[in-house]
Amino acid sequence: SRRKVEIYQYVVLKWTLALLIGLITGIVGFLNNIGVENISGLKVLLTNNLMQQQKYEEAFAMYVGCNMILAVGAAALCAYIAPAAAGSGIPEVKAYLNGIDAHSILAPSTLFVKIFGSILGVGAGFVVGKEGPMVHTGACIANLLGQGGSTKYGLTWKWLRYFKNDRDRRDLITCGAAAGVAAAFRAPVGGVLFALEEATSWWRSALLWRTFFTNAVVAVVLRALIQFCEEGGGQCGLFGKGGLIMFDVNSAKPAYTTPDLLAVILFLGVIGGLMGSLYNYLIDKLLRTYSIINEKGPIFKILLVMIISFLTSCIRFGLPLLSKCVPCPGECPAPPTANFHDCPPNHYNDLSSLFFTTNDDAIRNLFIDGQNTGFQLSTLIIFFVSIYLLGIVTYGVAIPSGLFIPVILAGASYGRLIGTMLAPYTVLDTGLFALLGAASFLGGTMRMTVSLCVILLELTNNLLMLPLVMLVLLISKSVADSFNKGVYDQIMRLKGLPYMEAHAEPYMRNLVAGDVVSGPLFTFCGVEKVGNIVHALKVTSHHGFPVIDEPPLTYAPQLCGLVLRSHLLVLLLKHKTLFTREKVMTTSTVTNKFKANDFAKPGLGRGIRVDDLDISKEEMEMFVDLHPITNTSPYTVVETMSLAKAALLFREVGLRHLLVVPKTPGRPPIVGILTRHDFMPEYILGLFPHLNHQ
Amino acid sequence: SRRKVEIYQYVVLKWTLALLIGLITGIVGFLNNIGVENISGLKVLLTNNLMQQQKYEEAFAMYVGCNMILAVGAAALCAYIAPAAAGSGIPEVKAYLNGIDAHSILAPSTLFVKIFGSILGVGAGFVVGKEGPMVHTGACIANLLGQGGSTKYGLTWKWLRYFKNDRDRRDLITCGAAAGVAAAFRAPVGGVLFALEEATSWWRSALLWRTFFTNAVVAVVLRALIQFCEEGGGQCGLFGKGGLIMFDVNSAKPAYTTPDLLAVILFLGVIGGLMGSLYNYLIDKLLRTYSIINEKGPIFKILLVMIISFLTSCIRFGLPLLSKCVPCPGECPAPPTANFHDCPPNHYNDLSSLFFTTNDDAIRNLFIDGQNTGFQLSTLIIFFVSIYLLGIVTYGVAIPSGLFIPVILAGASYGRLIGTMLAPYTVLDTGLFALLGAASFLGGTMRMTVSLCVILLELTNNLLMLPLVMLVLLISKSVADSFNKGVYDQIMRLKGLPYMEAHAEPYMRNLVAGDVVSGPLFTFCGVEKVGNIVHALKVTSHHGFPVIDEPPLTYAPQLCGLVLRSHLLVLLLKHKTLFTREKVMTTSTVTNKFKANDFAKPGLGRGIRVDDLDISKEEMEMFVDLHPITNTSPYTVVETMSLAKAALLFREVGLRHLLVVPKTPGRPPIVGILTRHDFMPEYILGLFPHLNHQ
Repeated sequence: SRRKVEIYQYVVLKWTLALLIGLITGIVGFLNNIGVENISGLKVLLTNNLMQQQKYEEAFAMYVGCNMILAVGAAALCAYIAPAAAGSGIPEVKAYLNGIDAHSILAPSTLFVKIFGSILGVGAGFVVGKEGPMVHTGACIANLLGQGGSTKYGLTWKWLRYFKNDRDRRDLITCGAAAGVAAAFRAPVGGVLFALEEATSWWRSALLWRTFFTNAVVAVVLRALIQFCEEGGGQCGLFGKGGLIMFDVNSAKPAYTTPDLLAVILFLGVIGGLMGSLYNYLIDKLLRTYSIINEKGPIFKILLVMIISFLTSCIRFGLPLLSKCVPCPGECPAPPTANFHDCPPNHYNDLSSLFFTTNDDAIRNLFIDGQNTGFQLSTLIIFFVSIYLLGIVTYGVAIPSGLFIPVILAGASYGRLIGTMLAPYTVLDTGLFALLGAASFLGGTMRMTVSLCVILLELTNNLLMLPLVMLVLLISKSVADSFNKGVYDQIMRLKGLPYMEAHAEPYMRNLVAGDVVSGPLFTFCGVEKVGNIVHALKVTSHHGFPVIDEPPLTYAPQLCGLVLRSHLLVLLLKHKTLFTREKVMTTSTVTNKFKANDFAKPGLGRGIRVDDLDISKEEMEMFVDLHPITNTSPYTVVETMSLAKAALLFREVGLRHLLVVPKTPGRPPIVGILTRHDFMPEYILGLFPHLNHQ
Repeated sequence: SRRKVEIYQYVVLKWTLALLIGLITGIVGFLNNIGVENISGLKVLLTNNLMQQQKYEEAFAMYVGCNMILAVGAAALCAYIAPAAAGSGIPEVKAYLNGIDAHSILAPSTLFVKIFGSILGVGAGFVVGKEGPMVHTGACIANLLGQGGSTKYGLTWKWLRYFKNDRDRRDLITCGAAAGVAAAFRAPVGGVLFALEEATSWWRSALLWRTFFTNAVVAVVLRALIQFCEEGGGQCGLFGKGGLIMFDVNSAKPAYTTPDLLAVILFLGVIGGLMGSLYNYLIDKLLRTYSIINEKGPIFKILLVMIISFLTSCIRFGLPLLSKCVPCPGECPAPPTANFHDCPPNHYNDLSSLFFTTNDDAIRNLFIDGQNTGFQLSTLIIFFVSIYLLGIVTYGVAIPSGLFIPVILAGASYGRLIGTMLAPYTVLDTGLFALLGAASFLGGTMRMTVSLCVILLELTNNLLMLPLVMLVLLISKSVADSFNKGVYDQIMRLKGLPYMEAHAEPYMRNLVAGDVVSGPLFTFCGVEKVGNIVHALKVTSHHGFPVIDEPPLTYAPQLCGLVLRSHLLVLLLKHKTLFTREKVMTTSTVTNKFKANDFAKPGLGRGIRVDDLDISKEEMEMFVDLHPITNTSPYTVVETMSLAKAALLFREVGLRHLLVVPKTPGRPPIVGILTRHDFMPEYILGLFPHLNHQ
């Protein structure tokens, strides 16, 4: 039968798209890595050549110049092509999955800038990661695939129409976000958990399975491509094992005593949590300052990026000069970072092995176990302080910038510092301390638990430290939670995205739905005059209008349902043949005139606007029956319903409009419509300021 | 302020309980292991001693006798004390977390039998696991802790009253279930994911965090206790490293070629999925047969257990006689299984190293990499067939019996069999084949994905095979899903538990809420005569009644809200002073007469029943105001609401009652109440049989 064929098409297409998302995200993640590794490698090689010829000034100029060119490239892409591509992207994806329909977030231009801006930005030596941008990239790829084709470019296919709705798009974008984490960290299970814990707002078991599949594809693709590079020998340029993070922390079974545990809890858990929340606080303050600068225009954005780039280059190149050369602990590290700053043979500069390399390699060096490498205390202190501050001042400039890597760098150097100081008193390895430090900072800023834990375990491939990592994450998150919110929530709030929390605020229990509903309300009759509809569409920006059946169609006025602005526009633009001169209901066969695609949610295009309507004066006086396009099963609450319960319904069922109906009979059948904005704390506390003081 | 103190008490208590659940479950899991290891070890030692004296008949009698005594012990506990403790327990926990309030499932007697029955049952050599029972045990412990004290034993404490509600109890029991997996497998992250993917029906981010904390506690407790045993030297009896499963599959990086991948997909993924769904089908058929036997009485239950025990003992002891002794591949295995069945020096019986040992050790032997041990093809075939069938015939007898271990055993032997056969053509290790075989069987029977994947990785401590495990799980689940449902869903259905699925069935879209609402409806007035209430409570078993305000209280009849049976019973039993001779509303100060605990959800006790009421004839004629105990914000839907949408609301918000109101004015203000049973497919398809054929 036709129905079974459609279900089959839908299922096949959904899995195919999940496969494609995994495939493309995996390839993009791999190319991103090749790009970054080759750019950084080339830059270090050029600089190092000049250094070895004792031309320090030229080397410095070369280093600063390379970084500056790359940085300006990234900033120009961001400032002129897609401003939405700046920053991490995780808050935007999270907001979209919560139901905030801002299409520029996931537009193709954003995707383009996110990919290349991230390569340039990370290549420019900024203290930024590629993980957040990869999540955004994955989501953009998923959004592009889930568009349902493109009428503009003639890429339409009957099958694709199934994805012209919010729910399926959201599912795909969840898969994309998960695939982004999987591709960035090579952590497929961590990616699934990230999508579950941080990204998505509505979770179903089927979605778990689909993201899992997508991430399995990513894992297989990455593995195949890495094998291709390894076996090929040089065909990937300077792409080494540094490309995709997989730190082998080679410490054996972590044995620990009770004092060790207390030290870890106190120094890493508690202080890490404090440092993490301070990080969030400072980022919040700085973002507000930066936004003033960034609003002045693209030139100012680029200037700001140039200043930060120069600062970063100076620190990365100059600070190692402060550090003495130390004897190599065993073998000396490989040339690029080895005899940097002119160390004698069998000596190396340990500060330059952290600063004068890629962020990934710096993390790898910090995680190495304590038997093989030791860092001087001064090195760790200098590195920690400068990376902590650089990470904060870099986020918010107009380049795609992930937060994971800066936080891991700061946390790992902090942990290693504590580990080195406590070394005489503890049996725990200093490399393990670095890992736990990274966990504590991540917990303190991002406030995730299970997903961070699994990501860290997948990164380090050692399951035996699980209990310690769990403990540190829990403590640092608890400590930080008592000061402020997670960094992504903060950024979302700063951007003014109306995120709907999973729980209702306590003061909502003292309010009822009728308290926050506001008017004036535009309602339509079941058969409405075209002119009235056009007027309502023009003077309001509402996305939904209640439809009320009135006598003589019914005995008394009663609520028929809800009609959407977008559906009204389609009806008025494409179905003028349905207009009637008299106020009569059409026959039920009218739905045959609609095509399956007519009322589908449009893709990236701007959709129909009121101005696109071309309705003659005569037509304005005609009537149109709204019943065929009315949702006759809208969710409703009585006006005396507790606002907290209404919020729960709104959030859990995933609504955009919630109709409020009167309690007592004899009144008009609708009181108002609750939308996302009516549940925002700012709005409610604006209406009832006294609730704020409770 | 008082409110802040209460919030503080609540938060502290909730975390304390999560800690206690982790602590106790960890200890129970450890003791369970010590018990099983010591019992099994002693049994094997005794038998082996007789064998070495060439007394084969005595050895056989000793082995069968020991097993029989242990089996009868387990069966007697189950049959006489707590029949609910038989089986896995996971379906029951899943049903409880879906909102099915069957208290015997989590009663203290069930807990007692589950712990000791499981030790005896596993010790008796049955092909059953301790994982399912541990999940049930964890849930029981959580339920006991979340009772809010016990009035019977005087264990009441003001703080505990916060847990006298469904939601907090469900949260705790989710933690308990997760802790059970963590304690059984030493897989804390896998436990969290299991709770999320399989057990719970409503998931919140806060719950993720709390289960994570509980499991971190379990991990720390287990680690400390194992360290205590290892360092103590013999103070844990025969408890060895076999106790808690942690298989180190020592194969290095799994390299594979495309033909390998195809072989894995075809032989393990597809055929594993088929075998898994066949397993489910056979278990379903056998359970129906067994339930006929088990219903005849406890004696029949015990007899059935004895038959299966004898069968198991014969197979475990006798089948190895069919196998030849083979030279030890390197070192010979340790004595108990080594020279069993009288092998010459430097020889061993490989079939007995699988049969004549604990299930955990058999799995460990199957997972060992192929370089160190080889099994004969005949050994693997015999073992696979007998374990596959034994696992099926054992589930359903009256002992606590987990399904994980039988399925892993069957899958691992199947995988190893395929691996041994394909050895000349593949570079993949046979031990890896065994692991993938276990994954495919688990995917085929239980139909979980992420949680199984993480549990397997935590068991084997090798993250590098992640992509392969993911692939096999996905394929076997997809293949099996096209035949039947997961084994836990099947068992739930067989037990008649009204589980509410996350999605609405397609035929529900063609129905409206009014179609399935049934029954003569009992409603109360806002101020109702006591006699009417008692009558309604006696003649119906409804748990909720609509309250309607009528003139002269209001202008027209209107819905006031919903009152619960349990609250009515409390009012009629404890608050007779509120009865009035006239039909008048009480003042608002009346709520001061209620104590905080009065309307709390009772714990394990049976609560108040209608028969407990002691109302005089005079009181029957009096009135009582129901407003103070009425929920005035019930969720409602209009009778023309699509049934699919009503089901979504019911499921997502987690309701027990959904009021259906009329669409047109002028009718009584309530049409009926939808409960869980009204959404069950059997009920709806009974009302509308033609929908079945669509």
